[in-house]
Amino acid sequence: MSFIATPQSLHFEAPLPLQSGASIRGYDLTYETYGQLNAERSNAVLICHALNASHHVAGIYEGQARSEGWWDNMVGPGKPVDTDRFFVIGVNNLGSCFGSTGPMHVNPDTERVYGADFPVVTVEDWVNAQARLLDALGIQQLAAVMGGSLGGMQALSWTLQYPERVRHAVVVASAPNLSAENIAFNEVARRAIVTDPDFHGGHFYQHGVVPARGLRIARMIGHITYLSDDVMNAKFGRELRPPTLPASHGALPPEGALAPRGGPSALDAPPVPAYRYSTQDIEFQIESYLRYQGDKFSEYFDANTYLLITRALDYFDPARAFGGDLTQALARATCKFLLVSFSTDWRFSPARSREIVKALLENRRDVSYAEIDAPHGHDAFLLEDERYVGVVRSYFESFAGEAR
Amino acid sequence: MSFIATPQSLHFEAPLPLQSGASIRGYDLTYETYGQLNAERSNAVLICHALNASHHVAGIYEGQARSEGWWDNMVGPGKPVDTDRFFVIGVNNLGSCFGSTGPMHVNPDTERVYGADFPVVTVEDWVNAQARLLDALGIQQLAAVMGGSLGGMQALSWTLQYPERVRHAVVVASAPNLSAENIAFNEVARRAIVTDPDFHGGHFYQHGVVPARGLRIARMIGHITYLSDDVMNAKFGRELRPPTLPASHGALPPEGALAPRGGPSALDAPPVPAYRYSTQDIEFQIESYLRYQGDKFSEYFDANTYLLITRALDYFDPARAFGGDLTQALARATCKFLLVSFSTDWRFSPARSREIVKALLENRRDVSYAEIDAPHGHDAFLLEDERYVGVVRSYFESFAGEAR
Repeated sequence: MSFIATPQSLHFEAPLPLQSGASIRGYDLTYETYGQLNAERSNAVLICHALNASHHVAGIYEGQARSEGWWDNMVGPGKPVDTDRFFVIGVNNLGSCFGSTGPMHVNPDTERVYGADFPVVTVEDWVNAQARLLDALGIQQLAAVMGGSLGGMQALSWTLQYPERVRHAVVVASAPNLSAENIAFNEVARRAIVTDPDFHGGHFYQHGVVPARGLRIARMIGHITYLSDDVMNAKFGRELRPPTLPASHGALPPEGALAPRGGPSALDAPPVPAYRYSTQDIEFQIESYLRYQGDKFSEYFDANTYLLITRALDYFDPARAFGGDLTQALARATCKFLLVSFSTDWRFSPARSREIVKALLENRRDVSYAEIDAPHGHDAFLLEDERYVGVVRSYFESFAGEAR
Repeated sequence: MSFIATPQSLHFEAPLPLQSGASIRGYDLTYETYGQLNAERSNAVLICHALNASHHVAGIYEGQARSEGWWDNMVGPGKPVDTDRFFVIGVNNLGSCFGSTGPMHVNPDTERVYGADFPVVTVEDWVNAQARLLDALGIQQLAAVMGGSLGGMQALSWTLQYPERVRHAVVVASAPNLSAENIAFNEVARRAIVTDPDFHGGHFYQHGVVPARGLRIARMIGHITYLSDDVMNAKFGRELRPPTLPASHGALPPEGALAPRGGPSALDAPPVPAYRYSTQDIEFQIESYLRYQGDKFSEYFDANTYLLITRALDYFDPARAFGGDLTQALARATCKFLLVSFSTDWRFSPARSREIVKALLENRRDVSYAEIDAPHGHDAFLLEDERYVGVVRSYFESFAGEAR
C-alpha cells in the first residue's frame, strides 16, 4: 500500500539562460512533493530523475492501481528516504516528455511546437531550473539531493553549482562523465531515431507520426546496457520462446515441438526443443523481451526528448573546465556525500564512482562509499537490495535529526 | 609486399541438406588457395571466416594496391601460417555476399532472386559445404582448420562433424555458444535492418534500394562490441571532432573554437574547445568514427547476409543436444587444439574460451591455450600482437614437418 501522489505545476516566465548560450522562457515544471516541509524549511530532499523517469518518484495516483512512482521502494513513509521526516520533491526536467515543457510544447516566441528546435539542455541547466523551483517553494537549502545514473550527475552538479544550498548529496550508480563507449551507445540510439523516415527532422508531430522504429531500437540498445551479462544469462540464457499454441492445447507443447536429437547421449538427455530456423521470427526469449521493451517504450516516450537527454549525458563533464582534473573540479563542493555503486554495472562501473570518491577525498570531503555486490547491472539502482536500501536508510537516518 | 591471390569458384549441383530440413542445390563456392598441396595431400589448412570477411584471407589482387586479405598478417610466405609449407584454403561461406551463392543470387528452383527466402544456414551447414569443397579438391584430411570468432566456431564444429578429417584445430577469440547478451546485440542489429522501410521484407533488390539505414545501425552496434572500453577511451576518449574549417585556414582551429572557461583554475588550464550543443551533429570523435564505419559497411554488405550470419552465430551450440554438457559434446573431437583468447574481449571473453579448454581437457584431449593480455577487445584476433602471432607461429611449426 502506497500513498496518493498529486502532480503539480509551476510556470516560470523569466528566461532561463542555458549553457549553450540560448535561453528558454515561459516554461512549466511539473513536480510532486511528499511529506511536510518543517517550520525551519530545512528538511527538503530533492530527487533527480534519470533518462526515462519523471517527477513521479513515489506513491500512486488516485484511482490508478499499479501507478507506483519509479523510486517507490526508496521514498515514502517509513522508507529509507522517510517522508514522515523529510519533505521530498520530485521534478520532471526541462525537455522531458512527462509534463514539464519539452519538445512537444509550443515555443512562446514562435507560437510553434518546438520539435527538434527545443534548445539543448545540460545537467547544469536542469540544476539551475530545479534551483528556481526551490526558490518558488521557499526552500533555501536542501537537506539532501539524491539521484541515480543521470540523476546522480544532477546531484553531483548541485554540489558544485550551489554548494551552499546542499547539506548532503547521494550519488548512486553514476559517473563523473561518459566514457567513449557510453557515448557510442548513445550515438547509435540517436542515429536509429534520427534516420527513421518518420522522424521528419524532429518535426514529426505535424506529420501525425512518431519515429517508433528508431525509438524501439534505441530502447533495446539501452536495455542491454542496463542489465549485466550475468543477469541476462540467469533470466533468459539461451532459452527459446515457447511455440505459440492453439488455445485448446493448454500449456503443453505440441508433440512436434520437442524433437529429440542424435548423438552419443541423446537418449539420456532431456528432449531438445526444435529451432524454428528463421532470421526474422523470434527464436530466443531474450529477443521477445527486448522487442516488448522497445514496443512499450515507443508508445510513450518522445523521440526529441530521447535525443536531448542522451546529449545531456554526453555533455556532462565537470572536470572539463579544469583540464580533466576532477579533484580541482570538485573542490567547490562543501556538503557530505554518499556514493553507491553496483559490482556488475558495466554502464557506470564501480571504478567510475571510485573516481568521484577519490577526488572528494583528495579535497578532504566527508564521503561514505558503498560498493554493492549485486547481479543486476546498472538497473540495480532501481531495485530492492537489502544492503543497498540499508545503506541509504542509515545515511538518511544519520542526519534526519539535524536542525539547521 | 604480399603475393598475388586469385579467387576461384566451384559449382555444386547436388543438393546440400541443411540443418533446418531445407536444402540448397546448384550453388557456387568462391575460394582462394595459397601455397602448394604436397604429394601426400596432407598439408592443407582451411581458414574459416567470421561475420564480414570472405575467402580473401591473404595476398593482394593483381593491380589493386591495398587489397590485402583480412588475415594477411597471419597467412603467407614465412608468416605464422606459412604458405611455403602449407596449402592454405580460404572459402566464402554459403549465404555470404562476396562471391559464393547468397541471397542476391537466383534460386535455380524458382528462377527468382533468393532475397529473404535464402535458406537459414548454420555453422554445421557451412562446415558440410566446406567438406564438399575439400572433396572436390581431393583433400581427405586437413593438417589444420583455423578461425577467429565465428570462424573459430566453424573450426570447432569441424572437429565434431568430421573428427577424422582434422589433425589440428586453432580456435581464436571464440565461444561454445552465444550468451543472452550476444544474442541481444544481434537481435537489435537485425531489427534495425528488418524495420528499415527499404528492407521490403528482404526483397529490396527488386526495388532498387538497400536498407542502408538499418545496416549502418547494425554495423555501429557491432563495432562497439568489437572494441574494448579501454581501447575506445585511448583512441577517442571524450575528444571532440575538430571544427570544420574553410580550406584557407589550414589545420589551425579558428579563434572562436577555443573558448576559455571560468572556474578557479581556468587560467592555468589549457583552453577548452567549445561544445557545439547539438543533438544531431557530430560532437565527439567516437561518433564520427562510428558513423564512418556504418556508412562504409552499408555500401558493400548485403542486409540479408547480415541476418543469416548473425543467426548462424545465435544457433551455434554444440552442447545443446547434450543437455548443455559441453564435455559430452566435445567427446567426439580427436584432434589437437590451440585456443587463444584476449583479456579485454568482452564479446567472447577468455572465460568462454576456457569453457572449451576445460571440456576438452575433461576428454583428455591435447590442448594448448594462450590468454593474451591485449587492450584491443575482440578485434585483437585480427591485429598484429607479437605474443599472439608468436603463439600461432610456434603451434604451426610444431606440426609443419608431420608426415601422415
